[in-house]
Amino acid sequence: MTTRPLAAIILAAGKGTRMKSDRHKVLHPLAGRPMLLHLLASVGELSPERTVVVTGAGREQVEAAVSPHGVLTALQAEQLGTGHAVAQAREALDGFSGDVLVLYGDVPLVTTDTMRRMIERLHADDAPATVVLGFRPADPGAYGRVIADASGRIDRMVEWKDATPDERAETLCNSGLMAARAEDLFALLTRVTNDNAAGEFYLPDVVMLAAKDGRASAVIETGADEVTGVNSRGELAALEGQWQQVRRARAMADGATLVAPDTVWFSHDTVIGRDVTIEPNVVFGPGVSVADGATIHAFSHLEGARVGEGVSVGPYARLRPGAVLERGSRVGNFVEVKNATLGERAKANHLTYLGDASVGPGANIGAGTITCNYDGFFKYRTQIGAGAFVGSNSALVAPVTIGAGAIVGAGAVVTQDVEADALALVRPPQTARAGWAARFRATMAARKAAK
Amino acid sequence: MTTRPLAAIILAAGKGTRMKSDRHKVLHPLAGRPMLLHLLASVGELSPERTVVVTGAGREQVEAAVSPHGVLTALQAEQLGTGHAVAQAREALDGFSGDVLVLYGDVPLVTTDTMRRMIERLHADDAPATVVLGFRPADPGAYGRVIADASGRIDRMVEWKDATPDERAETLCNSGLMAARAEDLFALLTRVTNDNAAGEFYLPDVVMLAAKDGRASAVIETGADEVTGVNSRGELAALEGQWQQVRRARAMADGATLVAPDTVWFSHDTVIGRDVTIEPNVVFGPGVSVADGATIHAFSHLEGARVGEGVSVGPYARLRPGAVLERGSRVGNFVEVKNATLGERAKANHLTYLGDASVGPGANIGAGTITCNYDGFFKYRTQIGAGAFVGSNSALVAPVTIGAGAIVGAGAVVTQDVEADALALVRPPQTARAGWAARFRATMAARKAAK
Amino acid sequence: MTTRPLAAIILAAGKGTRMKSDRHKVLHPLAGRPMLLHLLASVGELSPERTVVVTGAGREQVEAAVSPHGVLTALQAEQLGTGHAVAQAREALDGFSGDVLVLYGDVPLVTTDTMRRMIERLHADDAPATVVLGFRPADPGAYGRVIADASGRIDRMVEWKDATPDERAETLCNSGLMAARAEDLFALLTRVTNDNAAGEFYLPDVVMLAAKDGRASAVIETGADEVTGVNSRGELAALEGQWQQVRRARAMADGATLVAPDTVWFSHDTVIGRDVTIEPNVVFGPGVSVADGATIHAFSHLEGARVGEGVSVGPYARLRPGAVLERGSRVGNFVEVKNATLGERAKANHLTYLGDASVGPGANIGAGTITCNYDGFFKYRTQIGAGAFVGSNSALVAPVTIGAGAIVGAGAVVTQDVEADALALVRPPQTARAGWAARFRATMAARKAAK
Repeated sequence: MTTRPLAAIILAAGKGTRMKSDRHKVLHPLAGRPMLLHLLASVGELSPERTVVVTGAGREQVEAAVSPHGVLTALQAEQLGTGHAVAQAREALDGFSGDVLVLYGDVPLVTTDTMRRMIERLHADDAPATVVLGFRPADPGAYGRVIADASGRIDRMVEWKDATPDERAETLCNSGLMAARAEDLFALLTRVTNDNAAGEFYLPDVVMLAAKDGRASAVIETGADEVTGVNSRGELAALEGQWQQVRRARAMADGATLVAPDTVWFSHDTVIGRDVTIEPNVVFGPGVSVADGATIHAFSHLEGARVGEGVSVGPYARLRPGAVLERGSRVGNFVEVKNATLGERAKANHLTYLGDASVGPGANIGAGTITCNYDGFFKYRTQIGAGAFVGSNSALVAPVTIGAGAIVGAGAVVTQDVEADALALVRPPQTARAGWAARFRATMAARKAAK
Repeated sequence: MTTRPLAAIILAAGKGTRMKSDRHKVLHPLAGRPMLLHLLASVGELSPERTVVVTGAGREQVEAAVSPHGVLTALQAEQLGTGHAVAQAREALDGFSGDVLVLYGDVPLVTTDTMRRMIERLHADDAPATVVLGFRPADPGAYGRVIADASGRIDRMVEWKDATPDERAETLCNSGLMAARAEDLFALLTRVTNDNAAGEFYLPDVVMLAAKDGRASAVIETGADEVTGVNSRGELAALEGQWQQVRRARAMADGATLVAPDTVWFSHDTVIGRDVTIEPNVVFGPGVSVADGATIHAFSHLEGARVGEGVSVGPYARLRPGAVLERGSRVGNFVEVKNATLGERAKANHLTYLGDASVGPGANIGAGTITCNYDGFFKYRTQIGAGAFVGSNSALVAPVTIGAGAIVGAGAVVTQDVEADALALVRPPQTARAGWAARFRATMAARKAAK
Repeated sequence: MTTRPLAAIILAAGKGTRMKSDRHKVLHPLAGRPMLLHLLASVGELSPERTVVVTGAGREQVEAAVSPHGVLTALQAEQLGTGHAVAQAREALDGFSGDVLVLYGDVPLVTTDTMRRMIERLHADDAPATVVLGFRPADPGAYGRVIADASGRIDRMVEWKDATPDERAETLCNSGLMAARAEDLFALLTRVTNDNAAGEFYLPDVVMLAAKDGRASAVIETGADEVTGVNSRGELAALEGQWQQVRRARAMADGATLVAPDTVWFSHDTVIGRDVTIEPNVVFGPGVSVADGATIHAFSHLEGARVGEGVSVGPYARLRPGAVLERGSRVGNFVEVKNATLGERAKANHLTYLGDASVGPGANIGAGTITCNYDGFFKYRTQIGAGAFVGSNSALVAPVTIGAGAIVGAGAVVTQDVEADALALVRPPQTARAGWAARFRATMAARKAAK
């Protein structure tokens, strides 16, 4: 790999009117992450010296989204074409000398490997002026065509509307992505004109301008899926589906059983171990890892959670950020876990809310248990010791500690700490009124009849 | 549009043995509404003077279903063919003078626009005797063919079994739907015979009978999807799937994000706003509207509910009829809301049942809260004031009022009203028996070992 | 059908490295049952005198899985080819005289009918030496080809790599399944050599060896779906999908409505009645039967449960083994039922756990009710009488009995039996502190502001 400095320019000026959204197009999430951040992550693996995001409509949103990522932004105040957009990055790249990759915020799934291949091609022996990323779509339709020889040396590039029938018969299309040396790119861009029907400055024109200088450009190919762009919610959903299908196949190839693969949704960073079983209808939000041998039962929803070896989750379990389930623990149906740890072999099997809590190894949390972690102003923690047994329908009013081995009787509202090995009861005596229910029914039935 | 009076005849005499159902075929729901009622709604937009549903087997069911809709019914006691069925409507249309549309209860998705086009065609300058609705299926198979010229003037109609190879090569098929002037239709029907292999009176025969009188008929075309008929549960599911796919695409085009469109089910009347996000696996029963900017998380089930702007629903939320969630409110996991209003920014985040209740703005309903709205005979309401805080695992025994700003301690069973800004507690003291749990475990372990 | 004795040899020596699993390939479940057990069930209907499972890698797992099924096992210590594997069964079949079927543990969906046809063909008038099961895959690819005449008399069988272009143009492929008389099979196998590129003993070689003796073999055909083999988790998921699709179509043909068929998962033994409605996203684990007219609402998960006539389940109901819902009963949202019976018209509509319980006819179990069936050592039963009414958020500490017609007040922790028609209350008085909440808020708001 070349060790020349690298810069990336990501075009993100078009807000995307067809999305019909107040949210900028490139910030719509795919696999649980905004499209633009997919690109930042992929290009980030190449350690670019600078990354410039070209913004326009909705720039505040885009700037806010990228600001934690140490990238530069450049404003394209008017949308005058892709060539014009790239030119706006010139100032941000002032003093930069090296290679430039041009990417598109709404073409989010280009891989690091493809980017690397583009740059390597730029430095091949024939030293092309630019490298164009081409692809062969199932239906080439109105894409611009790339006319090149077998070695990838470009003869010419033509917009579909200007193409001859022979040119239209070519199947290699221009994705729009490009690599070039910074000095070449910006020099060529100054010569691009908007002398065309749309009155726009087109980035691909640099290829023919270089050719006029006697410098050939090169094309390399990649799969059509990788350069799919998103212009509408329908296209976003289609790309999401495409991503999910690839991810599911990888999970299975790596040794996970997906009973119904089409009903499992991963996020960009989901980690799935070996011999993990995932039943139908499971949603993985961002930040989840599942260790070997765990089972995620149907209808579970996980986000920001760590699931240990051999753990059983669900059905109908909701794990929220900060949920940590140690080896062999179990979280059952209608149970929500947030910012809480379950120790090894601990169980919370039914109808429970564990929030801001730590549960010791082997502890058993009865059905209907609630950690009362919020008083309307602050959050508090509940500590439950190893081997403790919390009876059903208990409310644990945090901050509170249940000692190791302690038992909490069913229906308790625990407001004071319980010592280890103690029994805590919060329960009035049971009273009975004989025959009351029969009399009640008679009265009510009469009232109902009278209505 | 013509302003001549309109009548619709809907054939619904065949119960549909292939459905293997005690329920009449045309009453099976599609997109949450019986098939027959789809048609009543579509034709209803043309304000027909009379609508006659021709019934036969299972007529009581059909009559009960249509009786609230102000339509007439006519009995076809014996199933002697479509021509015979239409003729049974004659009496119900006694005195009616105008146009007649013939529809089929098991062809539910014909649009109002198509119906309107049929009638307009009937009144075109060439004044056809009848207008036939044609379509071109992917596989024309054994459908009857319509042989017509480019202007839609019908030369002849042939049953597939009587068709020559040339006629079978025609791709325009007869959907069975027809428009004609009432006087023409019934006059022609009297001349239809059952002189054929099946011994049935066929409606399409009127076309050739009119031709014998020197009066041409016309065909207009529509898409095959629109005239898909349902004869089995498999076909019903396929049509449902087709309807859902169109509806999902429309939701996305209108500005909603569907992460996994194939896993969202709409009803015929679902209303979805702009910038609404719908996660995987959401079911919309009838009567739901979702306002702009709301998020419906995975695994939610909504029916008869109004979801306000920016509201967050689910995952695992069940909204039942009468649920009204005002702007910015939240209903979280394992929460059921029925005939209850949540005010602005009110929250019910976990494991809660709110039935027959009103919750004021900003109120916080703790995990595990239950409104006890039923005593086995009557239902009662719970009123919760603005800014109130209901502690976890509380039971609110209706009728009961929690005043604005009041706090209910965790685990309370509230049977008396709570004043505004008061604290209500229903809780015995906590007691502890030191070491009891350790002794209990020893005893039980010994007993278990002895078994 | 022949009444000659039958033996089955099932090859299951290959552990399946492409599965990347600690679990043996043939033990991975399909439709809720290990693949190998599908075969045992199918061949079992032919009442074989002996069934021999040939094991190798992971033999302990396979032996443990089949041990309850009364089958023999034979060890193939080294994997030297299919011919070698079958030969290992010789000892287990010592003294057996009759027909032998050779099956494959990773080809699980071969039907009993196909097996029967193979054996019948073996005893047809032309008395073939062996019967090969052939199929015509969509893409014949590298399968071995079967060259036969129109009567199924085999001319030759060729491995794809040895085949001429003409032979490769043949579409009839060898599934590997075979039937032969025991004496023929083992005699022929002694003559199979490993004189080939892979150095393996191939079972199909017996066909050509028999031909050398002047004895022809025969091929019969079956559908490609039936002989699909599983070598990876992806292939397992695909076969599962194929099985589910067939099963869903059958459920609909039999008179059940599946609103979204692709989202319903059946098990191998699921029984679905007539006029059953199944909403989207329902998972049937093993051992479930659903009687006529029942409705299974969306997001339900059933396993080992019996659902009676007209019962309503879900949405979000989890029925676990031993759940029995009698006619007209209802189990609603976020309710778990395990080893418990609900009598006719009994209801448990919301947020409830019923474990090890019996609920009498017409009883009403309030929202949030928990049966406390476990003390950390033993399980105990709860008995609820006919017409009883259990108030919301109650905990019933088993063993305990609620008499017929009794009422339990909301929020009770019931530890003593309740007499029939009595009212049981376990509830302290409600207390109020006027203005306390307002003061609390002022204090906390100040504290929050100070942070």
